[in-house]
Amino acid sequence: MADVWLSSLLTSSPQEGFELAIKLARMGVKYTQPSAEVRDRLRPQYGEDAAALIASSQVVAINFQTIAAANGYWRDVR
Amino acid sequence: MADVWLSSLLTSSPQEGFELAIKLARMGVKYTQPSAEVRDRLRPQYGEDAAALIASSQVVAINFQTIAAANGYWRDVR
Amino acid sequence: MADVWLSSLLTSSPQEGFELAIKLARMGVKYTQPSAEVRDRLRPQYGEDAAALIASSQVVAINFQTIAAANGYWRDVR
Amino acid sequence: MADVWLSSLLTSSPQEGFELAIKLARMGVKYTQPSAEVRDRLRPQYGEDAAALIASSQVVAINFQTIAAANGYWRDVR
Amino acid sequence: MADVWLSSLLTSSPQEGFELAIKLARMGVKYTQPSAEVRDRLRPQYGEDAAALIASSQVVAINFQTIAAANGYWRDVR
Amino acid sequence: MADVWLSSLLTSSPQEGFELAIKLARMGVKYTQPSAEVRDRLRPQYGEDAAALIASSQVVAINFQTIAAANGYWRDVR
Repeated sequence: MADVWLSSLLTSSPQEGFELAIKLARMGVKYTQPSAEVRDRLRPQYGEDAAALIASSQVVAINFQTIAAANGYWRDVR
Repeated sequence: MADVWLSSLLTSSPQEGFELAIKLARMGVKYTQPSAEVRDRLRPQYGEDAAALIASSQVVAINFQTIAAANGYWRDVR
Repeated sequence: MADVWLSSLLTSSPQEGFELAIKLARMGVKYTQPSAEVRDRLRPQYGEDAAALIASSQVVAINFQTIAAANGYWRDVR
Repeated sequence: MADVWLSSLLTSSPQEGFELAIKLARMGVKYTQPSAEVRDRLRPQYGEDAAALIASSQVVAINFQTIAAANGYWRDVR
Repeated sequence: MADVWLSSLLTSSPQEGFELAIKLARMGVKYTQPSAEVRDRLRPQYGEDAAALIASSQVVAINFQTIAAANGYWRDVR
Repeated sequence: MADVWLSSLLTSSPQEGFELAIKLARMGVKYTQPSAEVRDRLRPQYGEDAAALIASSQVVAINFQTIAAANGYWRDVR
């Protein structure tokens, strides 16, 4: 991928970190299925499938572990 | 998401940490399926599906790892 | 949940830690499906399903990672 | 469970640690399905199911992470 | 495998680290199914299957944890 | 298992570490299904199943986390 889409794991808050985790989860899909047209076609399908939604949340949780560790768990943020 | 829903990973007890882990698991679903109406429709379905309930508990467990580490495992709490 | 069911991750032995991991796995299910009646109905079903039993053991393993880390892996216990 | 089956995570070699990880994976199943008769009935079924075997290996891998960390990765063992 | 395909986990940016995580995920498949012909045949199939895409993203996430830790989370990179 | 098959987690390169992770994933299967005849029978089946291949890659990824940590991520190797 030629574009720069991830230059740092540091975020200013846990919520931004969580949102970055979501981005990583989506990019993991995008690298495997580069076609936006195909991904758009699949979206309504898994968006109504509880198992797929829970699985998505799991990928986010794993990425959030990485990002939270990178940020020292935002312990000094208020 | 414009709302601030996660300003810190620190909680005053392990149980509060566990409940925050549940919140993160749900938010992971919500970012993927923003429609409350669809999520409400799916709930009774996966609530009666053992595999989905176990998968949900797994997402909570992963998020709880993150939160517990953030809180130094609440070793000094009594 | 109003009850206090998790006041510490510290246990006096690895086995107690493992049993606490099982409790966390069950609580992860309970928060998603609060009805004891529904959970009781599902139990015989997944108790005879190898995939569900292995998945349950996986959730326990993830929670045990957290608890073991919290307890410094009980290195000083004999 | 009244029996003491896990008094330490320390083992004298990585291989013994891996075997302990297998024991933990089995105990995770046993706590959920205490009936030996049912577990024996399920065994031939999942023993011939590639997905179940891979899932079992995954639970072992997660438990092995915990045990390896507990043992300082056996870096000083030869 | 005779070829050297992995000589270091260090990368110059998080994005390169993520791309290395994707490579590891693919190599994990390749070691199990060495036939390029079979893998090519399977690709269109899982590329249109939401569950498989999410599962792929999960493997990437796990490998990214390893690579991010190896790189000290690229905290000093700008 | 009487044979010594795992005497150390240390390897001289990340690639050897990845290959050891594959071995651990296979041994996790072997301890659950000791029959080589059954495992050989299952191989062509899951080797053509994208979900099983992705799941295998995931087990490798988890074992690789352990081995990479054991080796200090091979930061000093060139």
